[in-house]
Amino acid sequence: MDSAQFRECAKATIEMLIDYYENIDNSNVLPSVEPGYLMKLLPENAPEEPEDWKTVLKDFYEKVLPGVTHWNSPHFHAYFPSGCSYASIIGNLLSDGLGIIGLTWMASPACTELEVVTMNWLGKLLGLPEEFLNCSDGPGGGVIQGSASEATLVALLAAKDKMVRTLTQTNPDFDHDILKTKFVAYTSNQCNSSVEKAGVLGSMRMRLLKSDPNGKLRGETLKKAFEEDKAQGLIPCYVVANLGTTGICAFDPLHELGPVCNEENVWLHVDAAYAASAFICPEYRHLMKGVEYVNSFVVNAHKWLLVNFDCSAMWVKDCYDLIYAFDVQRMYLDDLKTTVKIPDYRHWQMPLGRRFRSLKLWTVLKMYGADGLRDHIRNQINLALHFAKLVRSDNRFIVEPEPSMGLVCFRLQDGDSNTKKLLENLIEKKKLFMVACTFRNRYVIRFVVCSRLTTKEHIETSWNFIKEETDRLMSPDKINPKSQSISTIDHFDSIHICEKSK
Amino acid sequence: MDSAQFRECAKATIEMLIDYYENIDNSNVLPSVEPGYLMKLLPENAPEEPEDWKTVLKDFYEKVLPGVTHWNSPHFHAYFPSGCSYASIIGNLLSDGLGIIGLTWMASPACTELEVVTMNWLGKLLGLPEEFLNCSDGPGGGVIQGSASEATLVALLAAKDKMVRTLTQTNPDFDHDILKTKFVAYTSNQCNSSVEKAGVLGSMRMRLLKSDPNGKLRGETLKKAFEEDKAQGLIPCYVVANLGTTGICAFDPLHELGPVCNEENVWLHVDAAYAASAFICPEYRHLMKGVEYVNSFVVNAHKWLLVNFDCSAMWVKDCYDLIYAFDVQRMYLDDLKTTVKIPDYRHWQMPLGRRFRSLKLWTVLKMYGADGLRDHIRNQINLALHFAKLVRSDNRFIVEPEPSMGLVCFRLQDGDSNTKKLLENLIEKKKLFMVACTFRNRYVIRFVVCSRLTTKEHIETSWNFIKEETDRLMSPDKINPKSQSISTIDHFDSIHICEKSK
Repeated sequence: MDSAQFRECAKATIEMLIDYYENIDNSNVLPSVEPGYLMKLLPENAPEEPEDWKTVLKDFYEKVLPGVTHWNSPHFHAYFPSGCSYASIIGNLLSDGLGIIGLTWMASPACTELEVVTMNWLGKLLGLPEEFLNCSDGPGGGVIQGSASEATLVALLAAKDKMVRTLTQTNPDFDHDILKTKFVAYTSNQCNSSVEKAGVLGSMRMRLLKSDPNGKLRGETLKKAFEEDKAQGLIPCYVVANLGTTGICAFDPLHELGPVCNEENVWLHVDAAYAASAFICPEYRHLMKGVEYVNSFVVNAHKWLLVNFDCSAMWVKDCYDLIYAFDVQRMYLDDLKTTVKIPDYRHWQMPLGRRFRSLKLWTVLKMYGADGLRDHIRNQINLALHFAKLVRSDNRFIVEPEPSMGLVCFRLQDGDSNTKKLLENLIEKKKLFMVACTFRNRYVIRFVVCSRLTTKEHIETSWNFIKEETDRLMSPDKINPKSQSISTIDHFDSIHICEKSK
Repeated sequence: MDSAQFRECAKATIEMLIDYYENIDNSNVLPSVEPGYLMKLLPENAPEEPEDWKTVLKDFYEKVLPGVTHWNSPHFHAYFPSGCSYASIIGNLLSDGLGIIGLTWMASPACTELEVVTMNWLGKLLGLPEEFLNCSDGPGGGVIQGSASEATLVALLAAKDKMVRTLTQTNPDFDHDILKTKFVAYTSNQCNSSVEKAGVLGSMRMRLLKSDPNGKLRGETLKKAFEEDKAQGLIPCYVVANLGTTGICAFDPLHELGPVCNEENVWLHVDAAYAASAFICPEYRHLMKGVEYVNSFVVNAHKWLLVNFDCSAMWVKDCYDLIYAFDVQRMYLDDLKTTVKIPDYRHWQMPLGRRFRSLKLWTVLKMYGADGLRDHIRNQINLALHFAKLVRSDNRFIVEPEPSMGLVCFRLQDGDSNTKKLLENLIEKKKLFMVACTFRNRYVIRFVVCSRLTTKEHIETSWNFIKEETDRLMSPDKINPKSQSISTIDHFDSIHICEKSK
C-alpha cells in the first residue's frame, strides 16, 4: 500500500467510522450471530496475493462488523464504559503512525516525557496528593499501564519485593522463598476478579474479606484478618481497596483501611478503575478520603475518561519500590538514582516494550479540556439519576442500592427469578445490553450509562424497552413460549455479573 | 469534536503521516533534544478549556515530533524492527473506531473469532505443527498477547501451575507453596532481559546457562543443569529456548533441548520474538527443527511482520494449561470444556480486558498477502547480506559472527575501544542509530535492517557514514576533541546492548 492508496483507504475508513457513529442508534446493541459465524465465513488460509484495500474494507463491513457488540451504542449499559472518542482516535493514529517503541528515554524522548507530563496533568485533575506526582520533590510518579489487572499485579509484586527487603534488613538470615510463602493479600469479596487473579498470578494467597451490608470493606474487618493471620505465623503484605466495586460501585473507606495498613507496613493499593474518573469533579473527592495512606492508585482513563483502551493510569508514592522489583539490569544500578525525574518506565512495568500511549491521553485532555471532561462525568451521573427516577416511578421495581456514579441497580419486587427472566428477555431482543450482579443475596440488574452518545432521550427509550418487556413478562397470557432459558452463565467478575451463554 | 471536525482533523493527521514518511529520509534518526526538553515546553496543567484540533496537531508537530526517535527511518538499525505499515494503521484505526473490549465472546463475537482465524492463518504460514492450531482436533490454539515479555511470563506461570498439578496428583499431601519454592527455570545467558524478568515476576529462580561459542544453549548443558539441581532437591520446571537471541540472533537447537525437557516433563517455551517471522519462508524452517517438542511458542508480529505494536502471537499445545492457571471463575468450571473452540481468551492471558488486536494482523495479512510478506522478509535479509559484503570489503573491519536474518554484527580489527568510540561518534551525529553487544568477549556493533522503507541505496548511504566516521577516527589528527565519552551505559538487555547515556 503506497501513500496514495493509504490516503484513499484512510479517508474511506474515516467516513465509515463517522457513518458508524451517526447510525449507531439504528443498530441493535448485540449482534445476531451464532458462535463460529466468522470462522465459517472466512477462508482457512491467509491470501497468497495482496488484496485491494477496498476488498478488505468490504470484508470488514460485511463480515466483521455484523459480529460486533456495540460498546459505544447509546443503549449499551453493561459492564462499565469503554472509553472512546474522536480525540482519542486521533491520538492513537499519531502513535501508530510513528510506530515507535519507548524502551528507554533515548528510544524516543518524547514518549517518556509526554507520559510524565500527562500523568502529572491527570493526577492534578483528580486531586491526588502531590507526593504521587512526578513533579513533586519526592520519588512518586505516574505511569501508564495496560490495564487495571496489570496495575494490581504490578503493585502486588512490588509489595512482595518490598516486604522481603524490609524483613531481611532486620533478619538477614531469613530465607526469601520461605518468607514469600507466608505473605497474605487482602481485598473485599466485592473485588473485581482481576484482583483475585493478581493473587493467583503473583503467587500470593488472597483473602476475600466480607464486606459490610453496603458492600464496603471496613477497617475493623481488615484489622481482625491481620490479627488472625499473624497469630498463625503468616505475614500481611498487600491490600487492595476498591473505590467503586464492579458490582454496585461501592467505595471502601480508605481512611479506615489506611491506618490499619500503615501500622503493619502493608502496601495499600487502590483499584479505582472506573469510579476515580469522577474525582476530576471536586464534589466527589470525599470518596477518596484517606488517599494519603495509599502506596499505589489506579484509574482506567480508558473507562470513563474517553480515552481508548488501553490507558490505565497508575501512580505510586515511591517509584523505587517498582524499580527494585522489576529492574534486571546487572550493572550500573547506582545510575538509577539519576533517572527518577526522567523515568526509565520499562522498570515501572512488567513488559519491556511500550507504545506511545500518552498521545491519546494528551489529545483527549487537550481537545476536551478539564471542563469538558467534568461536563461529561456530571452529565453521565445525571443521566443515571434520571434513569433511577424513571425506575422508581414504576412500583413493580425497586432501585437498590442507591445509584452510584453512572450505575443504577434495580430489580423486580416480584422476585429474583422474574428479574433474571426480564434480563434474559431483554438480551434476547438485543436492543439493550445490561448484565446482573448480586446485592444482599438478591439478583439485581446493573444499568450503567456508558456511551458518550447517550442522551436523556436514549435513557427514556431504554426505560421504555424495559417497561414493555416487563409488561409482557408480568402479563401471564403474553409470556413468550419461545424465550430460551439460560443454560450456562458466564461470570465476568466475582460477584456474578452475568451474561447470556454463548 | 463532532463528526465534521473529526473528518477534517483525521484527514489532516493522515496527510501529516504521509508527509512524515515521504520525508523521513531528510531527518536525523535521533532527535536533538536534552532530557527534560518536553517537560519544559509544555504547561504544568491540562487546559481548562477545549483546544482546537489545529492547535493540538500544531503542538504535536512543533513540540512532540522533534523529540521522537524515528524507528521507521531507513537509517534506524538499532534493537530490532518495530513493525509499522499503512495496512496495520488502517486495522488499528478500525479497532479504535469501534472501541470494543473483548471480555468474552458475547462482548464482541467478531473480536474472539477473528483472533482465532488470524492466529490459524499465521500459524500455518509459519509452518507450525498442526497441534498448535485452534483448527486442529486437539486443545491447542493461538492467542495474541501484548508482548513477548508477557508471553514468557504467561508460559512460566502456566508451567508452574502444571507442575504443581502433576506432582500433587501422585502426592496429594505436598504443600503447594513449599513445592513452588523448589522450581527452577532455565534459559541461556544470551536471553533477552525480559526472560530473566519473567523469573523475577513469576517468583521462580531462573538459571542463565552458558551458551556455546556460537551463542546457542545446547542439550547437554541443559541436561547437566537439570541433574545438578535435582541432586540438590530442586525441581526443573520451565525452559525458555531462544530462536534468534537478542544479541547476535543465534538459534538454540530445539531438537536437543526438546527431548531433555520432555523426559522430565518440563515446559519448553520458545521465545522467537524477532526471528520466527522468517519461518513464513520455508527455507528458514530448519531453524526450528524440534518444534514439535515445545509447549508454547511466541513470535512478535509487531517486530518483523509489519504489524504495529502490540501483537505478540503465542501458540500453546494445550490451552487448558493456561485456563487452569489463569481462570478465577468460582462456578461453572465444567462449562469451560465447551468453550475451547470459541476460546474465552481472558483465561489465556493475564489481564481481563483485551483490544480488538487481530484487526491489524488481519489487514496486514490481507493487504500484503503471504507472498508480499515473504518478499519483505527475503528483501530485508538480502539487504543485511549486502551490508555485510560492504563491511567485509573494508579490511579495517571484521564481520563476526556470521550475519543472521536481518542482523549483521561487526567490529574494528583495531580493538574494542575504537569500535566503541566509533559507535559513540556515529550516535553523536544522529544520522544512524545502532546499538552494541558482546560476542566472545568482544564489543560488536549490531546493524539491523529494520524499516520497511530501507533500500539498497539506504544501506550504502549508511555504510558510507560508517566508513567516513571510521576514517575520521583512525586518522590521528582528525579526532574530534569535542566527542563526549559515555558516562553511563543503559542496558537494554542482558548482553549489554548499549546506547548513549541520557
